[in-house]
Amino acid sequence: MERIIDILFLLYFGSHIPIALFFDFQAVLPGWMFPKLFVDTVDWYAEEFGDAMMKAKPAWFKSFCTCELFLQFPFFFVALYAYWKGISKCRWIRLPIIVYSTHVVTSLIPILFHIFLHDFTLESYKGPRTFTERLQLSGFYFPYFIVPLVLLLDALFHPVYVNGGSESTRTVKHKPKGRKHH
Amino acid sequence: MERIIDILFLLYFGSHIPIALFFDFQAVLPGWMFPKLFVDTVDWYAEEFGDAMMKAKPAWFKSFCTCELFLQFPFFFVALYAYWKGISKCRWIRLPIIVYSTHVVTSLIPILFHIFLHDFTLESYKGPRTFTERLQLSGFYFPYFIVPLVLLLDALFHPVYVNGGSESTRTVKHKPKGRKHH
Repeated sequence: MERIIDILFLLYFGSHIPIALFFDFQAVLPGWMFPKLFVDTVDWYAEEFGDAMMKAKPAWFKSFCTCELFLQFPFFFVALYAYWKGISKCRWIRLPIIVYSTHVVTSLIPILFHIFLHDFTLESYKGPRTFTERLQLSGFYFPYFIVPLVLLLDALFHPVYVNGGSESTRTVKHKPKGRKHH
Repeated sequence: MERIIDILFLLYFGSHIPIALFFDFQAVLPGWMFPKLFVDTVDWYAEEFGDAMMKAKPAWFKSFCTCELFLQFPFFFVALYAYWKGISKCRWIRLPIIVYSTHVVTSLIPILFHIFLHDFTLESYKGPRTFTERLQLSGFYFPYFIVPLVLLLDALFHPVYVNGGSESTRTVKHKPKGRKHH
């Protein structure tokens, strides 16, 4: 880790692993695969905050959870490694991060549109009705929109990548002088 | 244009402009903005092939059409320019194409999941019921999954980008010898 913002990225990827494993994957994997405590937690959350998507599991929503299982999840470990080592040592992470973050930002757009604009009154499961309820529910998803957006902008524009082979001055500053390169 | 595959990319972006303008945008813009002929065509297509998404316009589907209007559409012209000039002269197109194509591939995943897995029997509009009908409807969307996927793989792995400053041998082969660089 070599930048303050890497703390955010490490927290994001690190927390995403248990959240995906115990909660998100319930949308695509059979219930018996999860401890009862986590199944009950999702039921409580869906009821309390009106997340009809996690209950009704419409095909379009399930498609994102499927991608999370097969594409995102293995990548979490790669990203954790890269941001832990520092991007100046892992410049190869740039393109995977651009693909990953664009994918996640894109998948959050229909979810946020759905939360704010869908008419939940005809749904079999409780959904948000007032604007405040919609805002509250969106709060659970919003971090998965905003952090990937920051990841994307960082990967597109950070000097470590943009200046090609040479390390950015910001990175060099953190290095002890005279340290040998391997 | 300097590669055979650029014909595919130029056809893709070139055809996408009128298709977006006359058909796709009907999902997000008011009907009076479109000539009656095109409104009727969409109505006929939606009825004939059971595209309930273009009729019911669920929020999640509309979100992609909104992105098409504000993000994709302006980019079509940029991409046309780059692939017309040739990627060896427009290496700056690489990252925009990676973002664009990841965005579009991602947005097609829920659409294809919806077509193949959604239960349309409870919908207000006619949807596909048999597997053949689902396959037929998916045929209209599939090009917008597969071409962006090829665009993505090309942008990630083509030697013109991967070999950095130097042009790939494949590209050089097409150039007449002794041609001056500007």
